[in-house]
Amino acid sequence: MSYLEKINCPKDIKHLSIAQLEALASEIREAILKRDSTIGGHVGPNLGIVEATIALHYTFNSPQDKIVFDVSHQCYPHKMLTGRKQAFLNEEDMQKISGYTNQDESEHDFFKVGHTSTSVSLACGLAKARDLKGESHNVIALIGDGSLSGGEALEGISNAAVLNSNIIVIVNDNEMSIAENHGGIYNNLRLLRETNGQAECNMFKALGFEYHYVKDGNDIAELIETLNKVKDTQHPVLVHIHTLKGKGYKYAEENQEKWHWNVPFDIESGKEKIQFSGENYNDITAEYLLNKVSQDNKVVVISAGTPGAFGLTPERREKLGQNYVDVGIAEEHAVAFSSALAKGGCKPVFMVWSSFLQRTYDQLSQDLAINNNPAVILTYAGAISSMDVTHLGCFDIPLVSNIPNLVQLAPTAKEEYVAMLDWALEQKEHPVIIRVPTTVFHTQEKVETDYSRVNSYKTVQEGKDVAIIALGSFFNLGRQVSNELEKHNIRPTLINPRYTTGIDKDALNSLKKSHQIVVTLEDGILDGGFGEKITRFYGDSSMKVLNFGAAKEFVDRCPLEELYAKYHLTPRQIVEDILAINK
Amino acid sequence: MSYLEKINCPKDIKHLSIAQLEALASEIREAILKRDSTIGGHVGPNLGIVEATIALHYTFNSPQDKIVFDVSHQCYPHKMLTGRKQAFLNEEDMQKISGYTNQDESEHDFFKVGHTSTSVSLACGLAKARDLKGESHNVIALIGDGSLSGGEALEGISNAAVLNSNIIVIVNDNEMSIAENHGGIYNNLRLLRETNGQAECNMFKALGFEYHYVKDGNDIAELIETLNKVKDTQHPVLVHIHTLKGKGYKYAEENQEKWHWNVPFDIESGKEKIQFSGENYNDITAEYLLNKVSQDNKVVVISAGTPGAFGLTPERREKLGQNYVDVGIAEEHAVAFSSALAKGGCKPVFMVWSSFLQRTYDQLSQDLAINNNPAVILTYAGAISSMDVTHLGCFDIPLVSNIPNLVQLAPTAKEEYVAMLDWALEQKEHPVIIRVPTTVFHTQEKVETDYSRVNSYKTVQEGKDVAIIALGSFFNLGRQVSNELEKHNIRPTLINPRYTTGIDKDALNSLKKSHQIVVTLEDGILDGGFGEKITRFYGDSSMKVLNFGAAKEFVDRCPLEELYAKYHLTPRQIVEDILAINK
Repeated sequence: MSYLEKINCPKDIKHLSIAQLEALASEIREAILKRDSTIGGHVGPNLGIVEATIALHYTFNSPQDKIVFDVSHQCYPHKMLTGRKQAFLNEEDMQKISGYTNQDESEHDFFKVGHTSTSVSLACGLAKARDLKGESHNVIALIGDGSLSGGEALEGISNAAVLNSNIIVIVNDNEMSIAENHGGIYNNLRLLRETNGQAECNMFKALGFEYHYVKDGNDIAELIETLNKVKDTQHPVLVHIHTLKGKGYKYAEENQEKWHWNVPFDIESGKEKIQFSGENYNDITAEYLLNKVSQDNKVVVISAGTPGAFGLTPERREKLGQNYVDVGIAEEHAVAFSSALAKGGCKPVFMVWSSFLQRTYDQLSQDLAINNNPAVILTYAGAISSMDVTHLGCFDIPLVSNIPNLVQLAPTAKEEYVAMLDWALEQKEHPVIIRVPTTVFHTQEKVETDYSRVNSYKTVQEGKDVAIIALGSFFNLGRQVSNELEKHNIRPTLINPRYTTGIDKDALNSLKKSHQIVVTLEDGILDGGFGEKITRFYGDSSMKVLNFGAAKEFVDRCPLEELYAKYHLTPRQIVEDILAINK
Repeated sequence: MSYLEKINCPKDIKHLSIAQLEALASEIREAILKRDSTIGGHVGPNLGIVEATIALHYTFNSPQDKIVFDVSHQCYPHKMLTGRKQAFLNEEDMQKISGYTNQDESEHDFFKVGHTSTSVSLACGLAKARDLKGESHNVIALIGDGSLSGGEALEGISNAAVLNSNIIVIVNDNEMSIAENHGGIYNNLRLLRETNGQAECNMFKALGFEYHYVKDGNDIAELIETLNKVKDTQHPVLVHIHTLKGKGYKYAEENQEKWHWNVPFDIESGKEKIQFSGENYNDITAEYLLNKVSQDNKVVVISAGTPGAFGLTPERREKLGQNYVDVGIAEEHAVAFSSALAKGGCKPVFMVWSSFLQRTYDQLSQDLAINNNPAVILTYAGAISSMDVTHLGCFDIPLVSNIPNLVQLAPTAKEEYVAMLDWALEQKEHPVIIRVPTTVFHTQEKVETDYSRVNSYKTVQEGKDVAIIALGSFFNLGRQVSNELEKHNIRPTLINPRYTTGIDKDALNSLKKSHQIVVTLEDGILDGGFGEKITRFYGDSSMKVLNFGAAKEFVDRCPLEELYAKYHLTPRQIVEDILAINK
């Protein structure tokens, strides 16, 4: 490491020759692999953007010139050049920074970003602010081809094109989204690559951009030459650079989808250091859907650019054939498309992470719920979590459960999940969202097959004084609380509420007879969520109600145990709170 | 009316000659004006699409061939040709149908639609369902140029382009959104118009569509000729038709923005039959912002395609100059843009209808709240309302109040609103959303100027036994309830909570001393809303809490008085419910 170690800020690279910058690029690659192989992280996007990042910082003057990273899967080289190299070189420093841009870490970062397709709109705002304040720096948005398919990106690009002022959009075209690309946009990107940027039919020129093509986006000299041309331009410019995702690491070049992000691995062999074993809902669901599709051609599996997150491997996608649709990163389209598939008599199943379901509130409400079409949505990773602040899964119950007509089911065990899936796919009455649990539990109880009596709770254990209503993935916690209470000579009633989108008034009313305390448990924030609806029901009664769940706050990479302790979510804490009530 | 009266379904027009179809077009125009002048409605969009609708129904076989209307501001001619002409010809039948497509009214409608930019995604779903089921009809999306700028539309178009099957997207280009168009997309539409569709640089071809241009989209013969060419095509086709918004009614042709939608009017003079007088928040806010901008160049007013809804007339926009940005129908971009403007040191004010704020959940959360930039959003029409099911304003409190970091203020009177605006624009700590009330009240009380102690309630009247916490536009209702209670010898405490996004624990705790009942009032649905947070706070106490607001349901053009009665929102009902508690 002759170069990287000496670099503390972008100006430290400005005196280097092209050859030296190329040597620096190699060192940055090595450092990316060091961090990723040690603690996991984004591999391919960072390896592919090394030269472009060097060229950007060589040509522009950050932070006066402002670079906005889209989704920031590709910000590691930028972090290394802006004072954060230790988090790549020293194992003990790695956890000190996030894997995304973060303005709390550096003046060279402007936003915390982890959802795609936002960079151009954000850059437009910075550019307009510059113009109103009479300043004169460059504003640059760096967006991948995969992120381009998202509605927010397209809104942003259409608006950037008419900014009538400096804005430089760099489209990093590595011919990949997280998986392969899908959508007409990629027809045009291919044409532009094939014509070395010369094709007349150019969607960016059509919108009004000055357009430049960089054939080898991993060639520092070529990049610098083009960036120098567009620097300080006083109108919207789009630079289309063709890069190689995973560049310089053979495993990542050869299997770009698998190496988009990875757990810790052995650099030499590419083998993962962590092996997941045992049952998981990715395999359970994927195999279930493969089987369904083989029996019923009307079943359609839909993903919005992230099939790998649900175990939809290339092999499984191949098997699903025409009954699998990846719409690219376009969650809004995915929900409307699903609604219309259901209207057309099909049985769509849209698989989506909790955090990305957020991108579809209006489609859930307008395209789906108002029309009441029987589409099925499977929400993954909907839980209190230790993830980055941009990927939290604790908000989807308030999101979904306050939209009329939607039915959200929260299964507690594999058997119940499968029964709910069976019912959801065959019924014709409701849009159904199933909150796929994170951990696989099994149940010995007989599982219902008919969930058409919406909002009906299931009493799993009859008791008195205290009733525990434990939702979905927290049902097991409810059982633990029940066991703990029995040590205090309280045998509580234990209820599996199954639905998040409404309450079972009969069940709640009947609890009034022999219960004084109702406890709700939910794996998400309390505000606007499941428990509050129950508390409201009891508002005019003498029932005491304790709601357990997460606080409404953005937490960032906070260990789960810490969060549980903070939110009083351990069985012992919950029992203490229950016992404290009557003191 | 020699033709229209004889038409009961689309096949009734198939034997007519072009001249007869043109006569029919005139009759349809007359009927549009009859309905609009009598009960109000969309004028320009319907007048402009008459010929295209006739040509569509002449060429295709609805409902086997399926036409999906975008936003459905332009569905009146379609309704007339599909069995619903009486709602245009007979005054007594007018209220029997909605102003939007509605599958409950007719088998020729497939979706209830009132938000823009959804048609192409919905059409993709119908087309894919057709293909999987081995059917062979045409699927047509009819989308206006204004709707094209929305992210969902762009996601849909990119996906439609790769459908590899029949889908016909008709872009109705009338060179207008609701107001004038904004965005790079319109550069390309203009180029295509100017070259009679021949320009090589064509964003639709770039995506992969077969492209056709119809120079006069109000010429039935030309339309039929082109539609016949594309009918039954087995790949994605886009037909770009150039129409005149407001065609055939001079006032609507001359002032297209004003006549997009109108209240009842006199056909002869174009004069509105209903005059609004007195103070309103549109004028108050627009004048406030004009004044602000004149003093502070960092203030930026942002609209997403609907400036007229906020009193931002062309004259006022002109005066705002560079400090006004219409981003087109692109609410997602608007929120991200606002966040970045604030990050860049400006003072953005994004004005949006409650129902359309729904389109920005993820941008509110990710672009704005996580980054905690001090942008200001003014939400209009956030209230229980008698509008169409697609335009309800009762959902924004649950939408906003369960996202961390956002501060939502609910002013109760003009003076308080202005003070809140002043504070919101100058503070640097929070993204602030102000829920603009629908009716202007005045207050005699001294209004605070500093709202930085977030979630602090204001006690307006000290009392005992009962506390009424009356939010925003329902504060006046709270006062009425208070007056009514005094007749029963109860002098309640009356609280203006001011914030929807959190609770004042000190204030709520102190009520425990001398109050047994807390009543919350909010102008929106109860589920996930303001009152439930208060009820949860009191869950472990003996406080009785009654939450008043709307049920979680989609209501459609239901008179406000009916809704209030149903939801127990009259002062008398509320007092009865309070008095019933201790019985």
